[in-house]
Order: sequence, then C-alpha cells, then structure tokens
Amino acid sequence: MPIKNYRWFIEPLSPEEGHLHGIKGVLYSGQTNYQTMDILELGSYGKSLVLDGKIQSSLADEFIYHEALVHPAMLAHPQPEHVFIVGGGEGATLREVLRHRTVKRVLMVDIDEEVVEKCRIHLPEWHQGSFTDPRVELQYLDARKYLEETRETYDAIVIDISEPVEEGPAYLLFTKEFYEIVRERLNPQGVISLQAGTVSPASLECFSAIHKTLSLVFPVVAPYWAAIPCFALPWGFAVASAESDPRTLSPATIDRLITERIEGELRYWDGLTHQMSFLLPKHIRARLKREERIIEDNHPLFTYH
Amino acid sequence: MPIKNYRWFIEPLSPEEGHLHGIKGVLYSGQTNYQTMDILELGSYGKSLVLDGKIQSSLADEFIYHEALVHPAMLAHPQPEHVFIVGGGEGATLREVLRHRTVKRVLMVDIDEEVVEKCRIHLPEWHQGSFTDPRVELQYLDARKYLEETRETYDAIVIDISEPVEEGPAYLLFTKEFYEIVRERLNPQGVISLQAGTVSPASLECFSAIHKTLSLVFPVVAPYWAAIPCFALPWGFAVASAESDPRTLSPATIDRLITERIEGELRYWDGLTHQMSFLLPKHIRARLKREERIIEDNHPLFTYH
Amino acid sequence: MPIKNYRWFIEPLSPEEGHLHGIKGVLYSGQTNYQTMDILELGSYGKSLVLDGKIQSSLADEFIYHEALVHPAMLAHPQPEHVFIVGGGEGATLREVLRHRTVKRVLMVDIDEEVVEKCRIHLPEWHQGSFTDPRVELQYLDARKYLEETRETYDAIVIDISEPVEEGPAYLLFTKEFYEIVRERLNPQGVISLQAGTVSPASLECFSAIHKTLSLVFPVVAPYWAAIPCFALPWGFAVASAESDPRTLSPATIDRLITERIEGELRYWDGLTHQMSFLLPKHIRARLKREERIIEDNHPLFTYH
Amino acid sequence: MPIKNYRWFIEPLSPEEGHLHGIKGVLYSGQTNYQTMDILELGSYGKSLVLDGKIQSSLADEFIYHEALVHPAMLAHPQPEHVFIVGGGEGATLREVLRHRTVKRVLMVDIDEEVVEKCRIHLPEWHQGSFTDPRVELQYLDARKYLEETRETYDAIVIDISEPVEEGPAYLLFTKEFYEIVRERLNPQGVISLQAGTVSPASLECFSAIHKTLSLVFPVVAPYWAAIPCFALPWGFAVASAESDPRTLSPATIDRLITERIEGELRYWDGLTHQMSFLLPKHIRARLKREERIIEDNHPLFTYH
Repeated sequence: MPIKNYRWFIEPLSPEEGHLHGIKGVLYSGQTNYQTMDILELGSYGKSLVLDGKIQSSLADEFIYHEALVHPAMLAHPQPEHVFIVGGGEGATLREVLRHRTVKRVLMVDIDEEVVEKCRIHLPEWHQGSFTDPRVELQYLDARKYLEETRETYDAIVIDISEPVEEGPAYLLFTKEFYEIVRERLNPQGVISLQAGTVSPASLECFSAIHKTLSLVFPVVAPYWAAIPCFALPWGFAVASAESDPRTLSPATIDRLITERIEGELRYWDGLTHQMSFLLPKHIRARLKREERIIEDNHPLFTYH
Repeated sequence: MPIKNYRWFIEPLSPEEGHLHGIKGVLYSGQTNYQTMDILELGSYGKSLVLDGKIQSSLADEFIYHEALVHPAMLAHPQPEHVFIVGGGEGATLREVLRHRTVKRVLMVDIDEEVVEKCRIHLPEWHQGSFTDPRVELQYLDARKYLEETRETYDAIVIDISEPVEEGPAYLLFTKEFYEIVRERLNPQGVISLQAGTVSPASLECFSAIHKTLSLVFPVVAPYWAAIPCFALPWGFAVASAESDPRTLSPATIDRLITERIEGELRYWDGLTHQMSFLLPKHIRARLKREERIIEDNHPLFTYH
Repeated sequence: MPIKNYRWFIEPLSPEEGHLHGIKGVLYSGQTNYQTMDILELGSYGKSLVLDGKIQSSLADEFIYHEALVHPAMLAHPQPEHVFIVGGGEGATLREVLRHRTVKRVLMVDIDEEVVEKCRIHLPEWHQGSFTDPRVELQYLDARKYLEETRETYDAIVIDISEPVEEGPAYLLFTKEFYEIVRERLNPQGVISLQAGTVSPASLECFSAIHKTLSLVFPVVAPYWAAIPCFALPWGFAVASAESDPRTLSPATIDRLITERIEGELRYWDGLTHQMSFLLPKHIRARLKREERIIEDNHPLFTYH
Repeated sequence: MPIKNYRWFIEPLSPEEGHLHGIKGVLYSGQTNYQTMDILELGSYGKSLVLDGKIQSSLADEFIYHEALVHPAMLAHPQPEHVFIVGGGEGATLREVLRHRTVKRVLMVDIDEEVVEKCRIHLPEWHQGSFTDPRVELQYLDARKYLEETRETYDAIVIDISEPVEEGPAYLLFTKEFYEIVRERLNPQGVISLQAGTVSPASLECFSAIHKTLSLVFPVVAPYWAAIPCFALPWGFAVASAESDPRTLSPATIDRLITERIEGELRYWDGLTHQMSFLLPKHIRARLKREERIIEDNHPLFTYH
C-alpha cells in the first residue's frame, strides 16, 4: 500500500537512513538563539517537539522516555528532596520529578528560554502545569557553568538534553569534565541519570563511550534502555552515583516504592519494566565491556544529524 | 546534516510513517508467484531481503531476529529432535535450529520456491550452507495444507513468515484455525514460536490479537520482544505450548543449556537476554490483558504495507 | 551532493513521480470547506500556495503563470472593459487584469472565501492591493451557477482554477457544458483564457482533451504553453473565442499594445514571448490533431493528485 | 492521492529541490573510472540513464533532447560532412547526426568507455545500431586533449556532455579556453552546439554564463531552449559559429531542409519547433543581456548535484 499525505518530516538517522513522518500540522516553527525548533503534528505520533531536526519527544510515547529517564534514578535514592534538571525544555521531566512526594525543591536550568516558553504554550500535555508548582525554580543559563559555580548539592541530577551535535548547545554536557562537575554537586547518596544515545548495533559508539566515560567518574554506572518508537532506533540511558544502584532493587521493592512515593499511576515504569530495562542484550554488554573511548572537552563526541 | 545518496528504499510503516534507506546496490529484484522480492544493499544495514516492500531481515541485525525467533522455543523443550519450520526463506532460521545438537531432522516448508532459491544464491551469510545439511528436508508447499494432512508430529514448530498483508501468502497462518492445526502436530512437550508484529504503543493491535488468539489454543503462551533496528519499530514474538514454558528457566539454566546444546557462540541470546525478553513493559502487559480480538479465518488480521 | 533540510513537501505528479521541496516555513495550513490549503515557504521557490496538495503558484515564478494566463486573451480583444475571473484566489490574475487601462469593471467569483481571505493576508506580493481597486467586485459563489443565471456579458473571461481532481471544486469547470455557458456570456469580440494542464509528452491527455472540447464550442481555439518551474512539468493554456485570435498579432503589434494598454513593466510577456508561446512543439501539435476525447459533465476528466 | 511504489530515485535539483521517481527496475548500476552510472526503469519515464546521480536522458523524452541538440546546428550548416561529437555516450546524438544524408564521417570521443559499452548493451532504443555505421569512428579519450592535438577540422562539433560538477569529467569542457580550442577545429562555415543547463528563472546563472563565455569566442551565438520533462526544469542549449546562424532560417526553409537532408521522420524538430526554440522568454533575454560572468579554466563553473 502506498504512502499517503504530502508534507513530510524526514529525520536523518545516518547519512543513509531516515525516519519519515507525514506532517498533519505545524504548530510552531522558528529559530532560537541556540537551535531550530519545530512543534509538528505527526501522523503516527501526534504532537512532537523537534530541535535541530531531531525529534525530542512525541505525544504518543513521551511517557516512555520521561518515565524511563526520571524514575530509576529517583527510586534508587532513599529520599530525593533536592533535584537539579539539566535541560528538560518540554517540562515533562519536571512533571515526573514532581510526582515524587519526597521532592522539596527542583531547580531546572535550560539554556534556551525560547524553547521552554514555546513548550509551555504548545505542549501542556507534557508539562501539565509543572512550571507553576511552588517547589520549582527555573533558570535560563548554561547549566554547566551554573553547576561549576554553585555550592549547592542535590540528591538527583537529571540530564535531559538533546544529542551532542556540532554547533549545538549540548556537546559539552557529555564529557568527562562535565560529569566530574556534576559529581561534585551530588549529596553522598546522590544519583544522576541521563539519556545516552541509540543502542542500535550499528551505532553503539555513542552509548558505549558515554558509559566508559561515566565509569571513570562514578563508582556505580547502571546502563539501561527503552524502545521509544518515535526515535526509530532503540535508546540507551544510564544512572550513575557514588553508591546508590537501581539494579539492587527487586521488582517487588520497585512496585512498593512507586506506591509509597509517586503520585498517580505510571504508564511505563513498574517493577518488571525496571528489571527488564537494566538487562541489556548480550551484544550490547559485549560492546560496553571492550569500549575504550573516553569523551573529553578537547575530544568531544558528535552524533549524526 | 543532510541526507546523502540518491536512490532510496522507503518502507511504509503506516500511511504516515516510513523508514528510509539509501540503496547502495540492487542484487536482485523480481516478482515471484506469490510476492515481489528485492535483495538490496542498504546504507545502514547492508544486504537486506525485502518481500512485498517490507524488510524481512538485514545483514546488520538478522542475528537478533533469528536467534530471538528460534532459541527460546528450542531451549524450552527438554530435547528437541524433530523440528518443522513454516516459511523461513532466508535459511537463517534453519541455521539456528541446526545449531542445536539434539536436532535429528528439520522439515522446512516454504510456499515460495523462488524466494528460497534466490536467498540461497544471494544470502550465504544467512543460511551458511544449512540447506545442504543431511538432517534437512525442504518442500515448496502450502505449510498449512501440509500440516493438516500429515500425521507426523514435531518437538518444535517455528513459524517464520512475513506479516499478514492482504493478498500476501501469509495471512491464513495467523488465525485460530491455523494454530489449532499446529497444536495437533506437536509432541506432548512440543513448542511453537513465531514473530508477532510490532509492539510499538501506537500499533499493538496485531501483537495483542495474536496473543489473545494463541491463548485460546495453547495453555502456555509466553510473549516476548526484541529491538531489531532494521524494522524501525520494536518487535514482538511468542512461544506457545501445552506445558513447556521458557519463562520458568533461570538465566543460569539458559546459559548452561546453551553451552550443552548449541554449537558455536550466540551473539544475541543468553541467560540475561532471555530474562529481559520475556519482561514486557507495563503498557504492553496492560494491553495484552484487556485484548478481546480473536483472529479467525473468516475474520483475519491485516497489517499495513 | 546531498539533499539538505529536513521538512519536505512532496507534490505527486503521477503515482510514480513527484516534485520534492524543502519547507523553510509554514505560513498557513488548514482545511477550507472545499479543499486543503497550505501556504509554504519553499527552499527554491519561496512562498507558495498549495491547494489539495498541488502547487498553485510560487513567488519565484508566479509572474510567468499569471502574465501568461491573462495577457494573450486581453490583448486579443480590441478593448476589454468588462472582465470576469473564475477562481483566481491569489489575486494575481486580478492584478494582471487591472493593469489593462481599458478595464472598467472586474467581477471575480471564487467559491472558496477562506482561500481568498488567507491569500489576502499572506500573499500581498501576489495581489498587491488589487482587491481594494474600485473597479473590482468579489463574490464567493459557484462561478458556473453564477454564469448560468446572470444576463451580463463580458469582454474577457479568465478561468484560473485548480486542476480537475475528484471531489475537488473544479472538475465541472472543464466540461463542454461549462464552456457553452461561458460562450453565452461573451460579447461579440469576447475571449476566454484558461490553464489547461501539463504538456509533458507522457501526460498530454488532459491538455489535448480540453483543446478538443473547446474546439467544439468555439470557432477560434489558440493553445499555447509556458515553462513554470514550480510546476516541474511544462504547462498548457488556451485562448478561445468566436473571432478574436491572438495568433494574428505580430510581435511588434503585441509590443505596441502592451505599451499603450498596460500599466507598468511586464516581466514575462512581450512580442517575442507571445510568438514563442503559440508555437507548440511538433509532438504536441500531432497529439492535438488526433485527439478525440471530449470532456462532458457526465464524462468528466480527472488529473492525478 | 498518494504516492505509490517503494523504491525511489531522488534527483537533487538544488539543496532544497528534488525530482522523485519510482524505480521499477535497475538494469545496471556501477562505478566507472570517471563517474557513477545507473540505468534505471523509472515509473513515469521508462528506461533512463543516470550519471553521478543526474538523469541524462529517458526513453519517454530523449527524442526531445537529442533532436534539439543536433538538428539546429546541422541544419544551419550548408552541407555538414565531417562531424565531431564530444561525449554522447548513449549513442543517440550519433543516431541523429547519422540521419543527415550529407554526413560522411563522424568521430565520437567519449572519455568513459564503460558508459558507452553499457549504453550499447542496455540502451538499443537510443543508439539503434549507430555505433556500427561505417561512417563512425569511436575513441575513448579526453576530447579536449584530442581537439588540441589534432589538425583535423569539422563542419559540426556537437558537445553532448553531462553538467559541470566538481570532480566530474566535464567541467573543463565548459570554459572559454575549451571553446577557443573548439573554434580552431571548425571549417569556415562550421557550427557547434551544446546543452547549457537549466533556464529556470531561479537558476539561470549557468546558462547565461555559458552564453556570455561563448559570445567572447564566437561571432554568432544562438541560444535556444526546450522542455524535457525528465529534467524537471526547462533546459537551455546554444549553437555558435563564425557565420552560420540557425535563426536566419524560416520555418518553411527548415521543413524543406529536413525533407531534403534527413532520413526518416523527426518527432520533435520541424520549422515551427525551430522558430519557437530560438524565441526565449523575456526574462531570460533580460538576464542574458546583463550577464558578466565568464567561465575560465581557472575560474570554472559548477552546478549542484
């Protein structure tokens, strides 16, 4: 059967691979100080945020991405009260963090005010009013610089940034030097979590280099993954910390913690999803084991876009 | 960065979604009695088999698909000796079955002789000579009719067919009536396995209807999944049987069984991959639980193509 | 070199041919009572009007389309004072008609008020304020019905409508019956002009059927053509009348008439362009000669879209 | 209506514009010493030759391209006997030259033997056996070098080469220095003809620079054009000479010369097509008049590909 529709968004996944979407509507399209930004209504995924030509999240499956990014780190900490979000423009990472009843304060630092402002207007299904929660402080700054200069420390730091593309705003937030800065801002049982690129067998170099780099900085590094269909390729994440390890929590413990600590019902994360996520396929484990590549400020990593 | 190349294969995933591949070469292209067939060299996945416009498997990740399809069923059986393969044109399902030292005879029945012949010539990395193994018998017949008429029974029946598309050869191999025929051809501890469509949240109807239909025919139905990047969307599978259940096997048991029974080294499947694969995400479990749709000969299921 | 950009508009020209445009912006996108409407900023053509998925005109070359549509008919009439425009939503056909100093009144009848309103807002480079010219009357009606019921007659009737697509608003404005209605509304020296589909050798059936149909209704039918790159394929037009024939006017006469009658400088049309346009290539003349197809209300013509 | 098919050839026309073709078959695909070469069966144009990703000619409309390239120059010469073809791999330029009964010898020099050999096998509809005509000599050499070194002179030199793309074989055949070499190899009434890029208003720089460059070398330069739909954009050509000018020939003279001198029936070229072709639209004439760009060996011109 044929492909319908006549306006298309093509997300390049490599110079020779793309994900093709029928565009049903364009809610916003512009150029911020840092990146191009589009909010599109896509045929199979509904409303979607696109930065520098790459889908960040879509209405159909943002619950998978945001629950997977936030909850394993938060549940690995015994009582997360102070949380720092790097990036997170859509406000959905904030939404998931705020569901944790233990949370007293969240500082979200995104460099791109225009992205956040437009998401606030156009993506209410994402933030669901989180930006007005009294526990939230929002600043438009370079998160790296902020973390370098502050003396505050946090129970969890959630890094929700777009991929490291040349001339994009994010590539210096994927380096060993950045992770060292982040480590210094964690409380003793503090944890970080981050998205870490695709785990497609043909393109594991980003995920495994991030994993290698994290393991030089943090005693505990727990890689995990999820299938987020709007990204086309399967996706990797990691939790890292000095001592808190989500992999030590049984499915039953996770289910109990979710009931005790989280408001409302999760759609993706529970004890079994938790267990599944930290079980990587054999070929990915093999690749992580032999990876040598370290990402540094003067030897950064760039992904295709 | 831009998309390079100038010849493209677009696989439609829905009327408004596609997977776009740069074509580096066309090894074969033709029309068989049953379907169109192309063997393409794709930029990101290498050599790939395409039937009726849908990728069946690619050099880059066929190991994921074929190991996932074959081993959980075979390992769930205490001693699989007689195996029946429905379809499996590339010869890679056969390859994985033959790695089991217990196997004495494999009957592969594919309706489309031309597909098998062309795969034999062009896809040696897939079959690796399996078609000439003395344990193998190959017949070009309607597998459903064959199973209906034979009195033989099997330890494992592996159903490796393309998706149910209208006017395609496969849609009557996804119905309750077909599964009843299959059940009658199993030995007491016999198992079946099959690919069961995407598990993308937006398109779960195929996977959950197959699961529902199987559960009316088999006491044990064990759904599982894998991420096979050339399919773009995450993919579902199922093992079904009267009593053998792969979910009862611990990772350690799986690793031991693999060492004892399987020739050579697997790249994808091992104890942890096994455990992961049968742990479905929460939203998929929820959907399976509430599914009512039963696939029958006079009420068949068709997927988009 | 590769194709850049990541949002694309694909105009299907046939089931197996398309014109692909990078979308730099979407100025408007909606569904009127009659058709879908998009105003896109395209990479190579700038701002462009798209109705039902087909480009109507673009900033880069609308001067070719609108000058070619309007001036040959107007110049073939000795003194065009009363003009009727069928369709013409962008307001550029109106703009070209109003440049003729002889014109005293123009009635523009377009069925789709929303298209005209949105063009008024977004396409000022097209209409250049023409809608507020005191000589203009604008009505939102079925032009065919209007012409059937009115007793007025005109010196020129310019038919500026989109192609005849099924369920689109235009297909009953391409039939013998419609042309008979139009003929009755012409003054003795009155002329009509219209766009008449592509003249690509592979798709001449529309152009030649319109020509055949016109020739049953009008003693003079003068087919002509232009290359309008945003249409990809070369395009056909026709002037028809009882007696006025643009082909009898020499280049020098055309140049003199343009100077005498038309305000401002034309970019496309002059004596030599006039002469060129009515000289069709040999294979097109051959096809027109042998065409038998007549377009009638109960045997309408549809183009691909 | 939707776009059918699933294999596509996208010809980039600019970084933001492309021509999209359904691929029905791939007859040949390879890399020569000079360029990539594909012979594709395209949905709307049939068999087509593609070099370095650009369509050279298609079965549906190669008659337009080759008749337009050859006949105006040949008819402008009083008695063309000795002809030199630069490039012309398909053999169709040769075919049209050989139809002239006056021709005693044709020397065709194409740098790329593989292209010619593959065209000979796969494009018999193009060459129609011309390569075996006893008047023909074929050499695989650098045509520029050959013309520089030979002492022979010709009545017509037809330059049938692909566009000047960086690292392609053709760009030094579009310079002032090359045209000076060509001029020295013409007999007193000798003429040259060549394709000269698109005449689309947005991309006239190539056509007008070639015209300007020719006019520094030849007293007579006659630019002309044709619509060749498989190229998507309208296309420019030129005849140049010391004294022979095709524009001085009336339609009646052209028709008479065709009857007297050419074997068989032409499909595209005749007196009226001839007259039309040399009448350029006003905006193209304006651009030619003000062009200053001269193409030189050390200041070459490249087109997008």
